[in-house]
Amino acid sequence: MADFHKYSSVEIFLGGRSYDIEVCDGFLKGLRGIVFKDGFRAVVVTNDVVAPIYLEFLISQLKLSFSNVDSILLPDGEIHKSWDSLNLIYEYLLENHCDRQTVLFALGGGVVGDITGFAAATYMRGIQFVQVPTTLLAQVDSSVGGKTAINHPLGKNMIGAFHQPIKVICDLSSLQTLPKRELSSGLAEVIKYGPILDMHFFRWLECEMGELVATDRTALAYAIHRCCEIKASIVSQDEKESGLRAILNFGHTFGHAIEAGMGYGVWLHGEGVAAGMVMAAELSRRLGMVDEAFVKRLTKLIERAGLPTKGPVLDAADNAGRYLELMRVDKKSEGGEIRFVLIDGPGKAVLRAAPDALVREVIDACCA
Amino acid sequence: MADFHKYSSVEIFLGGRSYDIEVCDGFLKGLRGIVFKDGFRAVVVTNDVVAPIYLEFLISQLKLSFSNVDSILLPDGEIHKSWDSLNLIYEYLLENHCDRQTVLFALGGGVVGDITGFAAATYMRGIQFVQVPTTLLAQVDSSVGGKTAINHPLGKNMIGAFHQPIKVICDLSSLQTLPKRELSSGLAEVIKYGPILDMHFFRWLECEMGELVATDRTALAYAIHRCCEIKASIVSQDEKESGLRAILNFGHTFGHAIEAGMGYGVWLHGEGVAAGMVMAAELSRRLGMVDEAFVKRLTKLIERAGLPTKGPVLDAADNAGRYLELMRVDKKSEGGEIRFVLIDGPGKAVLRAAPDALVREVIDACCA
Repeated sequence: MADFHKYSSVEIFLGGRSYDIEVCDGFLKGLRGIVFKDGFRAVVVTNDVVAPIYLEFLISQLKLSFSNVDSILLPDGEIHKSWDSLNLIYEYLLENHCDRQTVLFALGGGVVGDITGFAAATYMRGIQFVQVPTTLLAQVDSSVGGKTAINHPLGKNMIGAFHQPIKVICDLSSLQTLPKRELSSGLAEVIKYGPILDMHFFRWLECEMGELVATDRTALAYAIHRCCEIKASIVSQDEKESGLRAILNFGHTFGHAIEAGMGYGVWLHGEGVAAGMVMAAELSRRLGMVDEAFVKRLTKLIERAGLPTKGPVLDAADNAGRYLELMRVDKKSEGGEIRFVLIDGPGKAVLRAAPDALVREVIDACCA
Repeated sequence: MADFHKYSSVEIFLGGRSYDIEVCDGFLKGLRGIVFKDGFRAVVVTNDVVAPIYLEFLISQLKLSFSNVDSILLPDGEIHKSWDSLNLIYEYLLENHCDRQTVLFALGGGVVGDITGFAAATYMRGIQFVQVPTTLLAQVDSSVGGKTAINHPLGKNMIGAFHQPIKVICDLSSLQTLPKRELSSGLAEVIKYGPILDMHFFRWLECEMGELVATDRTALAYAIHRCCEIKASIVSQDEKESGLRAILNFGHTFGHAIEAGMGYGVWLHGEGVAAGMVMAAELSRRLGMVDEAFVKRLTKLIERAGLPTKGPVLDAADNAGRYLELMRVDKKSEGGEIRFVLIDGPGKAVLRAAPDALVREVIDACCA
């Protein structure tokens, strides 16, 4: 394997909002190249699980660049991806007279990244922020591309903004302490990139899944690098999801219904996406777009990643009806019609609607 | 006067986000040229004061373009420019399964426009909206340029985003029912454009102030058109207030302190800006940038508009100290230093700091 597996960089091209994703061991290399004017201050936003492991180290590194470094601790978990947590950040910033020369650092997983990004998008109409994702899921997906959000009691990620970070720093060493279930959840988003765009990468994953599950650093470094490369290319073409970018939501329409239907946090995001990808693949098959061999191949890889391949029963009386109800609030919906990311032959994704009756059949076949 | 005073249009050039400000009698002409795909729905956001006068009429007009037109009523007043009001909009949109093909119409003054714009900026990471300002203040200032926000208990407009409307429709007839005090408040923002950029317009205002206060339609039409033209030119050059745009905040640093110090809604925004402009002019004079004759001329015009020319006493023990404390949370502050919009000769504004001692002298001289 080439040397870049220890330290590599991927650029997202967005004109004046371009930035690098640094994949490295330790934060310090990742912080290289960020230069702020005098007077800028850093505020690290993290949670009570990540803080004991990384906060002190990150602060010591930031003190080399900033004279003023503070931190805010949020409660951990998807149920805290809420207005209340967001307001903790606003209150801290206002009470401490933080102005537009403040840079937020999001240290944690997707929840911390999404809330912090949305705080940065909306505090004083927008300040700078850096993503320091510490989970695989955040490193390969949520921290890259500028989607920020909080959940609303009536829908996941319904309140948010597009706001690009000025840098993403993926520290490989943070994955060594990640719980197995969280690692698997991240692998769901890794696997996703295969069916929608790159079956060579999918083939590589089939060879290396054992190493990835065992947190082999070289394998993880390549997987993260490649996922970021694919995502960067898509985001550069369609920053605000007017078309192409929606394919990154493969498995997510069903997945969001699972997360919402079970209550946020019961199923991890990647677990919902995993079962959701099987459902979306099966729906694609029933529409004649892929064959059964592909669905089996995908299902097997998902299983090897330690992920569920069947969706949960959300309602014993009318399970499919409940899924459909939850899926109608999806952001990809148009005029009440659910639009699915489907696989039109392995390696190619399309966005389209499907007859309710067929979707019901798929849900019935894919839940247990 | 030319015919355009009955119907005129100003374009804001912002590449793909360009849009027109229509100044007209009645909504219908203003709605011309907006074409939506089938499936789009309109949701009018307004308040309980404006609704009885205009809502039914606007809905009847919108029904010519949209098959589905709904409305949301917010409580009136600056104290309701809050998370709670914003959440009323989110809840309505989510409960009614509104997707990204929803267009919000902000029917009302600055509060309705700012909240609705921020809801549009953040609902599903951004949907389209149209400003239909019904106050002079909103027509000449707040509805134009894409600044959206809510207040935080710790600071005015601290939570917000830049999100451009797709159209601004200024209906002149709505000014005929506007309370006198609201009209005067709007005139503060009209007067502002003189000292910062256009003393010919200032001279015109000196001639026409009587007509404006008497809500003469032709005079108002020209004033609105000219203010929008000046603002459009500034916003096109500096959409996100990285420099030039800040001059539009002439009088606002002191003004925001007055509004916050008195409690939101006690002084109207334009009233705070009026007294604030006198203070900022006086500060400019003491820094040798304008002469006493200019300060007197500005003060007289403000007075003729029915506006206060002295600031209120916010703290009997240390009034200047209280002003300074409140001004330090201003969004233009950098590293704790307050930056004022000052007049560097009539018709030219600059952004700069001033010694605290001098600012104290100005506050002492300009409050009663």
